[in-house]
Amino acid sequence: MPQDDDPQGSAFDAATAVRRGPDGGFVAELHPGWDVGGGILNGGYLLAVAARAAVAESPHPHPVALSGSYLRAGAAGPAALAVAPGPAGRTLAHSLVTMSDAGGPTLVVQATTARLTGAAAERELPMPDVPPVEDCVSLAENAALAPPGLSVPGLVHRVETRLDPATAGWALGRPSGEPVLRAWLRFADDREPDPLALVTFADALPPTSFAAGRFGWAPTVQLQVLVRALPAPGWCLIEARGGTLAGGWHDEDYTIWDSTGRLVAQSRQLARAPR
Amino acid sequence: MPQDDDPQGSAFDAATAVRRGPDGGFVAELHPGWDVGGGILNGGYLLAVAARAAVAESPHPHPVALSGSYLRAGAAGPAALAVAPGPAGRTLAHSLVTMSDAGGPTLVVQATTARLTGAAAERELPMPDVPPVEDCVSLAENAALAPPGLSVPGLVHRVETRLDPATAGWALGRPSGEPVLRAWLRFADDREPDPLALVTFADALPPTSFAAGRFGWAPTVQLQVLVRALPAPGWCLIEARGGTLAGGWHDEDYTIWDSTGRLVAQSRQLARAPR
Repeated sequence: MPQDDDPQGSAFDAATAVRRGPDGGFVAELHPGWDVGGGILNGGYLLAVAARAAVAESPHPHPVALSGSYLRAGAAGPAALAVAPGPAGRTLAHSLVTMSDAGGPTLVVQATTARLTGAAAERELPMPDVPPVEDCVSLAENAALAPPGLSVPGLVHRVETRLDPATAGWALGRPSGEPVLRAWLRFADDREPDPLALVTFADALPPTSFAAGRFGWAPTVQLQVLVRALPAPGWCLIEARGGTLAGGWHDEDYTIWDSTGRLVAQSRQLARAPR
Repeated sequence: MPQDDDPQGSAFDAATAVRRGPDGGFVAELHPGWDVGGGILNGGYLLAVAARAAVAESPHPHPVALSGSYLRAGAAGPAALAVAPGPAGRTLAHSLVTMSDAGGPTLVVQATTARLTGAAAERELPMPDVPPVEDCVSLAENAALAPPGLSVPGLVHRVETRLDPATAGWALGRPSGEPVLRAWLRFADDREPDPLALVTFADALPPTSFAAGRFGWAPTVQLQVLVRALPAPGWCLIEARGGTLAGGWHDEDYTIWDSTGRLVAQSRQLARAPR
């Protein structure tokens, strides 16, 4: 198990690593284990790889706002990351990151970087009341939770996911009808959360449409992640809530709290509606 | 007054017009009347200008998702808009729009365009209960509503804003403490709403921190706007809600319904915390 203060050696750090490429940009090796089924890599995982490249080119250490447009489904294997720096000041810096594979660009990300602190919030949304981790339902340990016809995504073996039983009925043939999921998350190898981990957590649950009884794939079109504070060690709590479903589109909001109850990240995505 | 089906001649259409420039991109003349005070142009206005350029280069007629990074405060006057097209398919198209003035880039926008419909939503957030327009408080007609030390922004003369009295206490020296504003909006010249108008409405209210009794400027860093349906003619209802305020940052969500009660747009922004 890696040390809390030395994430080297964790599956997440290995799978999101970037290094300088020959042309001044970065290269990454996208890992096939971070998929959502059918060889499709998770959008939050891809966004974390882009965030790593943005931070590597920034005077500031943390991603605070990322907006990604998913141009094509990315596959595992080598990827190039070009970072175009924008204005950089004492408080924050902007950049644009383009991820490409052999077929061309797959993901474009506007990144704002800054330095996050552990200061207490002046105002924040309180953490919802959820049973403790040991009373929640493990996705990885319950193959039966895979919706009919879908393989279990690799992601559930990388990110340990414990569903609030109140939002797990869909997996047992009793969808609540309400597109809401709540779950405790941490990396399966106990690598502690940090801002990059939160970027991945911000898209790591099954589609909220599963809770409403629809098991089709819902490809993300645009995903915005805001990281608000440095997370404390331990489990994070995620609440994912589906919004409006209309005209072939739906949106989904995530709110993430750390183990101390602090709000640490939020995301919103527009996706195509599940079939 | 312009015809409903002929928006030419409206102040909004004139102020957001783009035309082909000599280098293949677009040029616009940013209008000083769409400011939020101190000569700073409204972020939603600038985003609508960028959206017009994105739509002009797209096979699809409407902006459905826009994520803008505000690099510097833009000033009125000539602006250049470069549109870099991304993948375009039958359902949607991506592009990246960069707005620049003489000093360099001011705003970078990832745009997703598609064709919106008037189809009924399968699920949507219901419109909140707000008094009718005639019982609400006009920002333009109440100079007293300007916070101490701030001039009345030009925007309130372009976008007619009628505050729900329940969220107007801040203007009368009785801030509710809750960072929530609700208001009916339409253009002052009765130009009917469309997807581009919704992009501007999605950032058109005073900062929600005003309702909580803080009257400092809160510059937008990143703004994401999702347009979900074609709005019906008439007033739109906007609810703006401040989220977490921590470490010098805050976030704000807008939800917009049209006159029939349909949810037509949403936005989320990360801003620097008001002083």
